[in-house]
Amino acid sequence: MKAPMRATLSPKGERASLSCPEPQFQVVELQNSLFIFHHSFRLLANHAELCTLISMQRKFTIGLIQMACTPDPEENLRRAEARVAAAADEGAEVICLPELFRSQYFCQREDVALFDLAEPVPGPSTQGLGEIAKEKQVVVIAPVFERRAAGVYHNSAAVIDANGEVAGIYRKMHIPDDPEYYEKFYFAPGDLGFRAFDTRAGRIASLICWDQWYPEGARLAALQGASVLFYPTAIGWHPHEKAPYGDSQRDAWRTIQRSHAIANGVYVAAVNRVGLEKPADGQGAGLEFWGTSFVADPFGLVLKEAAADREELVLAEVDLQRIEEVRRNWPFFRDRRVDAYAEITQRFLDGETGRSKK
Amino acid sequence: MKAPMRATLSPKGERASLSCPEPQFQVVELQNSLFIFHHSFRLLANHAELCTLISMQRKFTIGLIQMACTPDPEENLRRAEARVAAAADEGAEVICLPELFRSQYFCQREDVALFDLAEPVPGPSTQGLGEIAKEKQVVVIAPVFERRAAGVYHNSAAVIDANGEVAGIYRKMHIPDDPEYYEKFYFAPGDLGFRAFDTRAGRIASLICWDQWYPEGARLAALQGASVLFYPTAIGWHPHEKAPYGDSQRDAWRTIQRSHAIANGVYVAAVNRVGLEKPADGQGAGLEFWGTSFVADPFGLVLKEAAADREELVLAEVDLQRIEEVRRNWPFFRDRRVDAYAEITQRFLDGETGRSKK
Repeated sequence: MKAPMRATLSPKGERASLSCPEPQFQVVELQNSLFIFHHSFRLLANHAELCTLISMQRKFTIGLIQMACTPDPEENLRRAEARVAAAADEGAEVICLPELFRSQYFCQREDVALFDLAEPVPGPSTQGLGEIAKEKQVVVIAPVFERRAAGVYHNSAAVIDANGEVAGIYRKMHIPDDPEYYEKFYFAPGDLGFRAFDTRAGRIASLICWDQWYPEGARLAALQGASVLFYPTAIGWHPHEKAPYGDSQRDAWRTIQRSHAIANGVYVAAVNRVGLEKPADGQGAGLEFWGTSFVADPFGLVLKEAAADREELVLAEVDLQRIEEVRRNWPFFRDRRVDAYAEITQRFLDGETGRSKK
Repeated sequence: MKAPMRATLSPKGERASLSCPEPQFQVVELQNSLFIFHHSFRLLANHAELCTLISMQRKFTIGLIQMACTPDPEENLRRAEARVAAAADEGAEVICLPELFRSQYFCQREDVALFDLAEPVPGPSTQGLGEIAKEKQVVVIAPVFERRAAGVYHNSAAVIDANGEVAGIYRKMHIPDDPEYYEKFYFAPGDLGFRAFDTRAGRIASLICWDQWYPEGARLAALQGASVLFYPTAIGWHPHEKAPYGDSQRDAWRTIQRSHAIANGVYVAAVNRVGLEKPADGQGAGLEFWGTSFVADPFGLVLKEAAADREELVLAEVDLQRIEEVRRNWPFFRDRRVDAYAEITQRFLDGETGRSKK
């Protein structure tokens, strides 16, 4: 029986869980319809068949909110709430916002005053979006500039379940620091590891932006059983680099994320912002965020892709049967050499930790 | 000083090595010219400057022999030798042949008689190609169906240095088993780990075919300081799948390998065979090998790509300065969370080894 050993399914307003070794529930959602079982599953199907049925047939729609961000956090949050509600009305069941959507990308300069933009979790963003999530019965991935304590800040994503509660939080693990992307000044590296979260739509994972360049993070999220890896993002061009390098930069960004889908047999959803943003002090050319939010299927095919220069809602269907099919035909997980990967935990294999292979 | 801490450079017929902490040599090759130093380097440049100069300026040409294979091993070896010699004459300095080039792809069926195709290392292939390597003063990556002992066989690649000697051997770590690719029947999984080899052209790595789907293997080879990851390959279409899935299969194959270049800031060179091959017993539709051998640069740009349906020599230049430039601008190695990757060594993160992240 190749189905996942655990699935969590929640019908409207109610929570139910299925654990293959010990089935404990009577309410199952299949293809958006509810089936109520009053007796043991054996009356309908044996347990393995039921697990397979659920794992094979489950589909849901994801919605990516590609947006431009204004200097006003309140305005951004209100607009995000409205767009999440609209996405739900269009059929989205898991909705993801771009990295740090509540503000412009303030990391273009280092200024202690900008820590004022941070908020706790739970806080205003998860409160406001949680209400929409509950009202619309959808899952929301809400990136947050997280204030954890005085002097302890993270670049985070709160996963809000369809009951409006925070199901869990991911704190960006890989922190960049490049000209105009001074994130190491603002964010302590995440200390919760790579995570997957059980939601109304099943198990999903969020990573954040710079994480997208690291196969290790994608692998560890996928190994936890996530069906979709979301990458809320804020990536753009330095205006002077756009003409000579813009296409290759965006192509590398798309390619590495498509590769995570291929390597792991999962959906990958990247959610970027759009627009030219200049630092508040007016110094510098700013960053031109390149949009092109997209969804790749478990074999890396791009199902949907947004434009580079305007706000857009990207809707795509996630089909667990497709994951099943791809992983059966390209059984990469089966052949991983888990006995030979330990040195992945080394920075570089030189000197005494490494192996000179002459 | 960001240059590699060790470089091995060998002028024609002579071996010299540079070790940054303790320089020990007087012969240096720069941009294919020899420079003889009779005195300490301080006369020309300080030590760090010299190291940087060498690491930044070194270029070499790689040649990929995309070929069709006949049922006759001796003929394939003779043709391979001739093509390696011709590639050297065209300027190639590191030349790679396709996986198991000495025979047709026999893994289409399981037959104990086919173990007769195996050979030891050193053996006929490394002997014949070693002579060409020495004569032409080039490095050759020679895939071999390796007979290690009675009942112990590997799918291997011998790295032959420009003096004609075997610098080392890589044994395919990830072994596939799919319809018409019954490799688990023939090959024991490699037990030498992922490796890089010091050659006349510097440190390079070879992996083999199915390895290309695994980010872990690419990472571990790159962390050892390889400038190029070679992937000798035998991948093709099941004829009945070509129309519906052929493009997406080949695109996934190219994408995952380009992603290794991007993630690691290395060149990636995939070397495939061409032609339709049917099993010797005539049963089955055979496999149509899709060629399209290619070289990607350290940001994933495809520099050269061969046709799908004919033999071809792919020549491309490797420039260590390009690696330096890409890794400075996209400093992925710097930010790896080596403290958080240990669970990569798990098959799947369920049950007690995993973490339920609700």
